[in-house]
Amino acid sequence: VCSEYLPPRGMRDITGVEAELYEYLFSEFRRVARSRGFQPVITPTVEYFKLFEVKSGEEVKKSMYVFEDKAGRLLALRPEVTASIVRVYLRLLRAQPKPVKLYYLAQCFRYEEPQYARYREFWQGGLEVIGDPDVNADLGAAVTASEFLESIGVKHFYLVGNVALYRNVMRSFNIDEEAQDHILHLIDKEKVDEAVEEVKSRGGDIAAEVTSKLLSAESVDSVESYLQDLKSYLGDLYEKTLQEHMRVIEFTSALRELGYRVVYSPRLVRGLAYYTGLIFEYKTAGGELEVSIGGGGRYDGLTTVYSGPFEYATGLALGIDRIALVLSSNFQLREARSVSVLVLRDVPISVGYKVLRLIPSNFKGFVYRVNSLSKGLKYANRVGCDFAVIIGSVEYKQGKVVVKNMKTGEQVLVDINALPSLLNSSSGSS
Amino acid sequence: VCSEYLPPRGMRDITGVEAELYEYLFSEFRRVARSRGFQPVITPTVEYFKLFEVKSGEEVKKSMYVFEDKAGRLLALRPEVTASIVRVYLRLLRAQPKPVKLYYLAQCFRYEEPQYARYREFWQGGLEVIGDPDVNADLGAAVTASEFLESIGVKHFYLVGNVALYRNVMRSFNIDEEAQDHILHLIDKEKVDEAVEEVKSRGGDIAAEVTSKLLSAESVDSVESYLQDLKSYLGDLYEKTLQEHMRVIEFTSALRELGYRVVYSPRLVRGLAYYTGLIFEYKTAGGELEVSIGGGGRYDGLTTVYSGPFEYATGLALGIDRIALVLSSNFQLREARSVSVLVLRDVPISVGYKVLRLIPSNFKGFVYRVNSLSKGLKYANRVGCDFAVIIGSVEYKQGKVVVKNMKTGEQVLVDINALPSLLNSSSGSS
Repeated sequence: VCSEYLPPRGMRDITGVEAELYEYLFSEFRRVARSRGFQPVITPTVEYFKLFEVKSGEEVKKSMYVFEDKAGRLLALRPEVTASIVRVYLRLLRAQPKPVKLYYLAQCFRYEEPQYARYREFWQGGLEVIGDPDVNADLGAAVTASEFLESIGVKHFYLVGNVALYRNVMRSFNIDEEAQDHILHLIDKEKVDEAVEEVKSRGGDIAAEVTSKLLSAESVDSVESYLQDLKSYLGDLYEKTLQEHMRVIEFTSALRELGYRVVYSPRLVRGLAYYTGLIFEYKTAGGELEVSIGGGGRYDGLTTVYSGPFEYATGLALGIDRIALVLSSNFQLREARSVSVLVLRDVPISVGYKVLRLIPSNFKGFVYRVNSLSKGLKYANRVGCDFAVIIGSVEYKQGKVVVKNMKTGEQVLVDINALPSLLNSSSGSS
Repeated sequence: VCSEYLPPRGMRDITGVEAELYEYLFSEFRRVARSRGFQPVITPTVEYFKLFEVKSGEEVKKSMYVFEDKAGRLLALRPEVTASIVRVYLRLLRAQPKPVKLYYLAQCFRYEEPQYARYREFWQGGLEVIGDPDVNADLGAAVTASEFLESIGVKHFYLVGNVALYRNVMRSFNIDEEAQDHILHLIDKEKVDEAVEEVKSRGGDIAAEVTSKLLSAESVDSVESYLQDLKSYLGDLYEKTLQEHMRVIEFTSALRELGYRVVYSPRLVRGLAYYTGLIFEYKTAGGELEVSIGGGGRYDGLTTVYSGPFEYATGLALGIDRIALVLSSNFQLREARSVSVLVLRDVPISVGYKVLRLIPSNFKGFVYRVNSLSKGLKYANRVGCDFAVIIGSVEYKQGKVVVKNMKTGEQVLVDINALPSLLNSSSGSS
């Protein structure tokens, strides 16, 4: 194929077992999300750039695919889905009983240098809970994601952090929100020294010292006593900061109580600027590498950014491509047994489709028309069929078919109507 | 919500029952396609413009979303998926036993004036069969689509046409392929007189007369005798034309034999320039309106356009949005029975999630933390739960829960371990 006909740089054609794996992940994600009371939402793949401009974070904004449509409207391929979900909630779902629990499965896009397991088009499975201030909202989403990961056999653990600590310290030292976003972005990029420098230049020595200390906290408990010391600096923000900290503690201890490993990770801030407090990430465990496969956190009040009333909100997204990669080495789809209906050239082809209708629904089946029986059997064999149902003109005239077990080679001539029970009673191998 | 935060013009947020319906259609389409031996393929949402430029048809090209990425590459949001599928086949699937049978579910995009049931982003479910010259390939795809439509309860019939008739007549009068594409495009736009004029000006009076007569054929049989008369004009192309006509006859008669209504429709050409012969469309039947819900046809040799070797190919795509619209008035999802686990504030929240693990997997279930029981029951009722499992501190200390049947009001105090069997044995209503 000429290079002009390759997939765009950083994007992929997914086929074969890999495509089967994606479909399996999609269907399991949907099943688990539904079983926990989350409702599906489908939003546009393309949005006005404006939607993401407001609060997506530096990194995300820099790497968006942005373009004008023919009427000059500035559009973007979605880099993430939460902004769209907030819009959906505000437009269409405010009358529902709260919390409103939503899920999505969606391609997202980022224009970055492609690297191993990072694609320019990637799939996200997300869970969002709007309208509940309680830590149960965070837990409900997190545990549902864990249940999904368990259902597909991905061992994992949690990193947990709290961006409210940094935001509130910075606010109390009069560092504005845009600068906060930038400083958090630096922490996310592991430029911690640079971040602390920036806090110093904008908020002074004490602000820098406090931030630095919080960034080095070794456990969630050590933060608590330190917060007491900060009471005078935090002033009005102290109560709120403590509250969010208590959420992190309760989230952590409940997850541990449920058997999950949770690591307090003070430098975890994630790449999205809309997080307001509790923040968490999923890492794979038990393999050679600890790979990040998703995460989320609190984004209370993001609704106000889109001209809506204040709403509590929390959510998470899992990277389906990463998960597929983790699973790819040992994924094997459980296939239904399969039948190929081989119709010889001198029999009307519609007869094959009538016979196909008689194949029990727990079998995979299709019609193949052939000039010679040997060619048909060879095909049935190559595509891995368990049975071949052979219809030649002699059998056809008698209302019969030959059923051949492709694994044993055994074959029998039966009346067409006996086909379903014959197949059902056979102990096919796959 | 401020208008800048609406979905882009012509695109939609899909929520609630409508989103459930889409997910149901996706999962049924996948199930039926798989059960007939089609394999999933996932291709990029964005492609190089070049991929579609070659052979997508005037209409499609005019209405594409085209834009440059940051490196100046010309990209397009896919207007359809067949071009990508051909690329996938050529790059990755040529070694598979033929025919190679593929399916996809994908958003496509067209920049057109939005109108009722025509969106700028729309969903297509497609089936493609590559490497089989036999009409069985066409039938295999068509019958699978019909089975999908039957499984979701959409009554339908077929329109059938044959673009090889026009292409070969035009070729034999030396009308080049680009002009052929344009003339077929005019027929598709129901500008039949204009199309015939164009044939006249490029191919002469006889070419126009023949085209006109073929466009008015009342049945598939009347075409056959007329083809005989054209033998001298068609010359070398006669055999090929007759062969494709025989495919249309066999396709039609097999479908009728299987109980489908099929209407020969000489003016059916469809909007894509790559079709080479048999062409067909699905129309809904039995409703107030006959709505087109998809179609397909032969595209033999499209592989050569992408620098590959010649391959026989056929396929179809169904419009999921149209189908959703047809079904929307009477779609009701069969929901699993549901349980809300109500945890009172003085009980550790993790207890709720431990109880959730005991809920049988055929139930939908989630945890809700409440300050008062009455608030919890009200919520359970509003979200339509069949059962509430109530955990207060008294019950918690005894290792017990209260199970309330939300429909009958009946409630019992049981040991936590007795919960699964109690729920399984109950005859919940939904």
